[in-house]
Amino acid sequence: MKVPLGFSMSGVHAGIKQDKTREDISLIKSESTCTAAGVYTQNKVVAAPVILDRQRTPAADIRGIVINSGNANACTGEQGEQDAEEMARLAAAEFGANPEQVLVLSTGIIGEPMPMPTIAAGIKTVASQLGTDEAQVVAAARGLMTTDTSHKIAVREIPLTTGEGRVMGFAKGAAMIGPNMATMLGVILTDVALSPDEAQQLLCDAVNDSFNCISVEGHMSTNDTVLLLSSNQHQPTDSERATLHEAIHDACIELARAIPNDGEGATHLIQVDVSGCRTRNEAHQIARTIADSALVKTAVTGADPNWGRIVSAAGYAKVDFDPSEVCLKLNGTMLYEAGNPVAFDAESVSASIRENRNTHIDFRLQQGDAAVTFWTCDLTTEYVHLNADYHT
Amino acid sequence: MKVPLGFSMSGVHAGIKQDKTREDISLIKSESTCTAAGVYTQNKVVAAPVILDRQRTPAADIRGIVINSGNANACTGEQGEQDAEEMARLAAAEFGANPEQVLVLSTGIIGEPMPMPTIAAGIKTVASQLGTDEAQVVAAARGLMTTDTSHKIAVREIPLTTGEGRVMGFAKGAAMIGPNMATMLGVILTDVALSPDEAQQLLCDAVNDSFNCISVEGHMSTNDTVLLLSSNQHQPTDSERATLHEAIHDACIELARAIPNDGEGATHLIQVDVSGCRTRNEAHQIARTIADSALVKTAVTGADPNWGRIVSAAGYAKVDFDPSEVCLKLNGTMLYEAGNPVAFDAESVSASIRENRNTHIDFRLQQGDAAVTFWTCDLTTEYVHLNADYHT
Repeated sequence: MKVPLGFSMSGVHAGIKQDKTREDISLIKSESTCTAAGVYTQNKVVAAPVILDRQRTPAADIRGIVINSGNANACTGEQGEQDAEEMARLAAAEFGANPEQVLVLSTGIIGEPMPMPTIAAGIKTVASQLGTDEAQVVAAARGLMTTDTSHKIAVREIPLTTGEGRVMGFAKGAAMIGPNMATMLGVILTDVALSPDEAQQLLCDAVNDSFNCISVEGHMSTNDTVLLLSSNQHQPTDSERATLHEAIHDACIELARAIPNDGEGATHLIQVDVSGCRTRNEAHQIARTIADSALVKTAVTGADPNWGRIVSAAGYAKVDFDPSEVCLKLNGTMLYEAGNPVAFDAESVSASIRENRNTHIDFRLQQGDAAVTFWTCDLTTEYVHLNADYHT
Repeated sequence: MKVPLGFSMSGVHAGIKQDKTREDISLIKSESTCTAAGVYTQNKVVAAPVILDRQRTPAADIRGIVINSGNANACTGEQGEQDAEEMARLAAAEFGANPEQVLVLSTGIIGEPMPMPTIAAGIKTVASQLGTDEAQVVAAARGLMTTDTSHKIAVREIPLTTGEGRVMGFAKGAAMIGPNMATMLGVILTDVALSPDEAQQLLCDAVNDSFNCISVEGHMSTNDTVLLLSSNQHQPTDSERATLHEAIHDACIELARAIPNDGEGATHLIQVDVSGCRTRNEAHQIARTIADSALVKTAVTGADPNWGRIVSAAGYAKVDFDPSEVCLKLNGTMLYEAGNPVAFDAESVSASIRENRNTHIDFRLQQGDAAVTFWTCDLTTEYVHLNADYHT
């Protein structure tokens, strides 16, 4: 596969997860020092690897990332922080690097001590299997997964005067199950040069339009992290730099959308477009409130074009607006215009929801030009089963 | 029944609802002018009766309330406002009062025109049946109901030097179904004298500790309203006035708790106590975030003592705290203390959830003395069925 130059990777089953067919340790190695940036959960309760990575990014001398799934190393106190450092140290030893040059990602059960002997053995095994073949890339992507039903990889190519620039991203979903305080994790790799500051700014911007615009059930994890690494193999021109930014932005959106699409029990991916707002923040606040409404989600589950639930959700988003300026379309059909319900063919709109995986909510105000696109999934009995029928 | 002196009431099936066994028009009449106060939804999209009542309260000359269920008169534009005024006019004509002396409450389907001939006939019928017998009180309480499984009445008696003061309250639930943007409605009646200003302040305080501390799924309706009426039959002493305040406060809490307890598909009433905060607002913010977490709700559904979901929900409540100050008890058992998981008997805590209707979450910080008590219900597959398996 077209792995960005300078990176190699793989994933193995070390034994953190019980199911032997599921990878639980991944390693991404950079041949030489690389640029790294990170964006992290805003939760007040953060996992040990988040504490460690926050201190280590942005940076110019990172050599790789060690990832485990099956244990989040969250709410594990002082020991957890030592374990995260030990994971970095073990990976660094394999890379011939300093411990401070390795970043750590964990996801899985919270409040349980890390099974360090298992993890140490896994790091040693995976380090002997690094490469750029498709099987190795997929194994690395699978090592991030918890309750995701499929791995998530996005790839972009950028024509450069110096050759072909590459972007490759991985993500895992925000689906949560049992005691697994699951988490959104993302890793973006590129071989096009980025300074630490540029990487940090680019990642913040891209995350703002992608991973910060999704939710499954509105719960924010202790571990959410997106990392961007560049091996700096290609020096882009200014116009190529713009193309790179766009490619990373695009890859983040592709990965972000894949998360609610794979939400637990989801039968629909719901795109919520909010426009005509004074500020992007206000658009985001309205979109998120609509997306997080259990009543909106269950209406989509039931293929019910229930504009009342959508309009009233927007009404409690803590954004000031006059109801008479609201226009709402569902799958392209106007349901509510300038504050008044519109006569529409409910059966055909219902059919358009029922027969498509994607549902599109288009909510407009008339206050300005700010807009946002947000993605979520519907709420099904399967979600409740997955999250209720589990006992610690 | 011990209806506060000066009030009479009843409820009838007028035909707004299809089911003929369900009352859909109620009338509460005050023999003479009475004090009235109101607290209303903060939604930007408000129903016509909310617009009308907001203008008419607080007041000293109210003669009664006309209530319908089955149609919320929300998102109905200019016609809706005229219909709300017409309802007040029709009730006032029966009372021999001015139209401005009547308040209006509506709940039910939104975006549909009000069936005014049906409502007019219903008001005429119910006006001929007013009284203070238990059957009349229950019929009045049932006239507020939408998807509630039972009517909700709270009664308090206050010994006064001038006789027995009475408080009687009604409420309907925040359960939502189909296109019915259902609503929290509350009515509190007393015969102990209150000035309009005192009534308004008292109602705001009582609602703050009761109806503002509950949620079913976090969706705020276009119609939420609580009204307080006093017929001013007894002049209380200062100490009796304090007792009255306490009684109204208590009655509001009893009614408020009854709402999530009767939440759609609920199998548990969850009480969330948050204490040790700097301000009541911060405690409320944490409590509400825990209560609205689908992961916390489904953990209770599944009798899973999942402290990770609770602690991490608190962590994204946008309140600043240090995780090392968090203590969490579930049904009296400490699960998480000073930022560390505690060893506990998971099976016995699980059994205590499974075997009791009430679940108690006790979350403490160490920043101050502010505290709040919040109530919600769990999230079950039945909730999803009720809200998804309906087609407009």
